[in-house]
Amino acid sequence: MPIHHDDPATLRQACRTGAFDRSTAGHAPGRIQANLAILPQADAFDFLLFCQRNPQACPLVEVLAAGAREALAAPGSDIATDLPGYRVYRDGQLAEERTDVAALWRTDLVAFLIGCSFSFESALQDAGIALRHLQLGRNVAMYRTDVACTPAGRFAGEMVVSMRPIRSRDVARVVEICARFPNAHGVPVHVGNPQALGIADLARPDYGDAVEILADEVPVFWGCGVTAQWVAQRSAVPLCITHAPGKMFVTDLKG
Amino acid sequence: MPIHHDDPATLRQACRTGAFDRSTAGHAPGRIQANLAILPQADAFDFLLFCQRNPQACPLVEVLAAGAREALAAPGSDIATDLPGYRVYRDGQLAEERTDVAALWRTDLVAFLIGCSFSFESALQDAGIALRHLQLGRNVAMYRTDVACTPAGRFAGEMVVSMRPIRSRDVARVVEICARFPNAHGVPVHVGNPQALGIADLARPDYGDAVEILADEVPVFWGCGVTAQWVAQRSAVPLCITHAPGKMFVTDLKG
Repeated sequence: MPIHHDDPATLRQACRTGAFDRSTAGHAPGRIQANLAILPQADAFDFLLFCQRNPQACPLVEVLAAGAREALAAPGSDIATDLPGYRVYRDGQLAEERTDVAALWRTDLVAFLIGCSFSFESALQDAGIALRHLQLGRNVAMYRTDVACTPAGRFAGEMVVSMRPIRSRDVARVVEICARFPNAHGVPVHVGNPQALGIADLARPDYGDAVEILADEVPVFWGCGVTAQWVAQRSAVPLCITHAPGKMFVTDLKG
Repeated sequence: MPIHHDDPATLRQACRTGAFDRSTAGHAPGRIQANLAILPQADAFDFLLFCQRNPQACPLVEVLAAGAREALAAPGSDIATDLPGYRVYRDGQLAEERTDVAALWRTDLVAFLIGCSFSFESALQDAGIALRHLQLGRNVAMYRTDVACTPAGRFAGEMVVSMRPIRSRDVARVVEICARFPNAHGVPVHVGNPQALGIADLARPDYGDAVEILADEVPVFWGCGVTAQWVAQRSAVPLCITHAPGKMFVTDLKG
């Protein structure tokens, strides 16, 4: 049986030594997990501005100083080794997947920690609202929309959203709960009509896995941190390092 | 009798021609007004990060691209001419006060619009909560605290707060209303005890005018946009241009 880690520092240490290399979903319950994007200083102002202008897709949990590897939100951490997996994009193309990026580190790299939906998903489950993808052990369904983000410098692109089927009678309560998590995408960006976002077919997500929508449910859409990766990729920055899917940076912060 | 401007574009135009050179308080009711800080691109990443790390003092309404003078929040505007007055700091010292800064403009300048308390003050008054400094026609009382902001690069310093006396029975309602305005400092940073913030004497504010606190009132403290100016000044950046006190940038945004 795989080891389960409740303590965020222990989990990060296990990532560092290579003992843990799976998804962080469900580990360190109650702690804020974050999407990672690392860019050279030359692109950091525009990327920070992009995040600031698009907070529902890219809520900033923390931005580290240039060259810094220890997050304030995780004392003792090393951003270059403490995730279970990394992806390296060069000129917008996926170049390699690695278990650490210490060998690629440079003093001009800036790490961005972007909020992730794990925080509000726990709160929804605690409130008795079932989430189908978790029940089925799948990744959440994600779609590229035709909604343009507010651009900043070289960074521009469409918002990526995640979708969860919610029973009609629970929609208002779901919005109320998610409003407490502005650093984890906050309230939904849209309720009910995939066509309004330019999504042609919910059965064919661009990332993650599709789930069924039952007769008494509506599809509810949230801004998704994958937007940051998509936009960095689309704008073909020379270098962008991200987490591998599902392999988040686990902070000490309580959600 | 002085002209009163309800329309934000008309007010900005009057600033541009020099026809309006007074405080913007009470003009263009319901529109978001903003503190201004303009810095060279070389310092812009660190300053943007400082604001992002200290959102109660420095909530970002908008950051313009390097060299840009037209704010998205105010189509047709010119950030270099459309405020009633500007202050120019060089190496941390006040160098001059001007009615426009078009002659100083450079393509590497980045303008930051930082939320201002005028938005939540209107909402409090609409809810029947009297604000003494407005009744007396004074500036709000502001104090430098001993609370350190989270630093970012060269930018570090203590938080500046504004203080308003609030009747005990209204404090919870005031917090509830202000929570709706995260871009205008949001909820108070402290209620009740000036000593806890390192404020020795409420009768001697560092900026603005003192007001009396009555027996059934408590002093309530909010993060203040003057923090940005204080920190830019204290860190002795080569150039920082700000609005002159009370002479804000009036956007088209509704609060």
